[in-house]
Amino acid sequence: MIVHRTDPYNAEPPPGALVGQVTPLDTFYGRNHGPIPRMDAASWRLRVDGLVDRALQLSMGELERRFPEREVVATLQCAGNRRADLLEFRDIPGQEPWGPGATSTASWSGVGLADVLAEAGLQAEAAHIAFTGTDVSQEADPPQAFGASISAAKATSGEVILAWAMNGQALPVAHGAPLRVVVPGWIGARSVKWIQRVTAQVEPSDNYFQTVYKVLPPEADPAKADPGEGIILGPVALNCGILRPDRGAQLPSGPTEVIGYAFAGEDRTVARVDVSSNGGSTWVQADLDAPESAWTWQHWRTILTLPAGERELIARAWDSTAAVQPESPATVWNPKGYANNSWARLHVTCHP
Amino acid sequence: MIVHRTDPYNAEPPPGALVGQVTPLDTFYGRNHGPIPRMDAASWRLRVDGLVDRALQLSMGELERRFPEREVVATLQCAGNRRADLLEFRDIPGQEPWGPGATSTASWSGVGLADVLAEAGLQAEAAHIAFTGTDVSQEADPPQAFGASISAAKATSGEVILAWAMNGQALPVAHGAPLRVVVPGWIGARSVKWIQRVTAQVEPSDNYFQTVYKVLPPEADPAKADPGEGIILGPVALNCGILRPDRGAQLPSGPTEVIGYAFAGEDRTVARVDVSSNGGSTWVQADLDAPESAWTWQHWRTILTLPAGERELIARAWDSTAAVQPESPATVWNPKGYANNSWARLHVTCHP
Repeated sequence: MIVHRTDPYNAEPPPGALVGQVTPLDTFYGRNHGPIPRMDAASWRLRVDGLVDRALQLSMGELERRFPEREVVATLQCAGNRRADLLEFRDIPGQEPWGPGATSTASWSGVGLADVLAEAGLQAEAAHIAFTGTDVSQEADPPQAFGASISAAKATSGEVILAWAMNGQALPVAHGAPLRVVVPGWIGARSVKWIQRVTAQVEPSDNYFQTVYKVLPPEADPAKADPGEGIILGPVALNCGILRPDRGAQLPSGPTEVIGYAFAGEDRTVARVDVSSNGGSTWVQADLDAPESAWTWQHWRTILTLPAGERELIARAWDSTAAVQPESPATVWNPKGYANNSWARLHVTCHP
Repeated sequence: MIVHRTDPYNAEPPPGALVGQVTPLDTFYGRNHGPIPRMDAASWRLRVDGLVDRALQLSMGELERRFPEREVVATLQCAGNRRADLLEFRDIPGQEPWGPGATSTASWSGVGLADVLAEAGLQAEAAHIAFTGTDVSQEADPPQAFGASISAAKATSGEVILAWAMNGQALPVAHGAPLRVVVPGWIGARSVKWIQRVTAQVEPSDNYFQTVYKVLPPEADPAKADPGEGIILGPVALNCGILRPDRGAQLPSGPTEVIGYAFAGEDRTVARVDVSSNGGSTWVQADLDAPESAWTWQHWRTILTLPAGERELIARAWDSTAAVQPESPATVWNPKGYANNSWARLHVTCHP
């Protein structure tokens, strides 16, 4: 793993480790804002409250007994994924320089959030469902447990899972045991780990991390920005990454296989991926995998014949509406460095 | 109106006529592939068939009596909107050179397609809902009535209307009377006019116009393209247009109000619009209207202080996922000239 910080632990796999459709548990990226909490699963309870007809307190055993088990294969992607490419345009102090590996895919099993909310009796005025974790972050102002919210429409859509298993194994503590939220198609920060409370409410969560994950205009000062300023992130924007060859690789000239992923959040899929080795003058259409579910990345691959010399490989994805990624990090640069979905670029050197 | 062709009739309003939230009937753009059919509303029937439990034949009176009236305010946008900007990069013979006015907004009233399909008893295998119009197009191969299909998920989502009224008036023949489909958030070509048949089926429509509205890779020959090649268009990609000042306007130097629209199809909204008068070196954030419904464009405006000389005004929109429009027509150019959503650009001259 490429460890960006040890305390709190923040690490991504090397890109080449992400060429599989499903990511092994020990390869899945880790994004934390506080120390990993150790909880006693036996005494742990999930509180469901707020605008519901019946507030609930549920043990793990009750969750297992009272609700059908659901499974979804879903990609999670950190809002800071590919921030490193923004830093080349302009520095962003204090933020992890994520490469293209702050994204991974797993099969998640647990109960459907929609089922739990139906049991509690969600009231009509509940427009947002807030999650509270257990990991207290000193980064927050004031220090507080990590939290987030999603729209009630998304929360009741069926694909949102309260997960206790990952790839058929017990959910590791590092990934949120005993129970975590998985919000397919949305930025990773909404998939709250070590969850202890689900609250139905009129307004979005007022948790520090709900409001901080936003794209501000370039000239804004995050410390002084108006709370209403910026685009609060939810569904993930179309993105792609190059997984092979490695950044800066020394390659023989001739045919080289280029492999990557592309991901279109929420209701969209990836329809096409283009790859160029001449600065975008000409493009080759890559072979594109179908998504394993509506909520996963899609891998792509093609073979380029590279002449000797320095070379920049570029990839760009198109979604099911024929929208394409923007060209330049300069366009999408923002003060916190979120949601970089500009064309993926990577330098290699080919020797004769 | 700017008439691109009289037979079949294809016309868009001058951009400045689109500054209102709702477009007057005689200003709404017209996009046709064949002569406008004149139908006798009294003898007209809507056939609902295919994978349904009960095929229906419905007169206008039966539609009115048997189903609740529904209304939706929705923007329609032609897939060819803003093709003119693509032509500056590379010519596209035989396709209308639409400016930014091949889009308009109206309030549509009629019955919900979901209600009609529920009455017919939609079967589980029905994945697509096909529409057949009455306007026979000689452009099609072979000549045929215009048709299209949408996913069953969209068709049953509640917002799709079979409309007999527009802005509170009887639907004009030019816009599809006696009855037309309105598919909010999708390209205009799926909102079939002069509809006579709704068919539930396993596969998408095999109508010529279902398959021709697609974004092919630049090097493809539309006449020889593999049927599976290209991105079949449905939901509209994020887009924007400048409505004022006029293209090529002669203005006094000093403060100038710039007004435009932005539109994000399907489940997205416009979150921000930037305007530049120095080639994108710096941007001003425009004031952005909230959408009137989840299905409408959003107008924006700002005041720029323009020095004397030639000037290019640029606008770009960001959606609710923080995705931004791509910069250049060169990126999005495609052989049929669809879905141009590159940054809007417009030249003006400011005299001292």
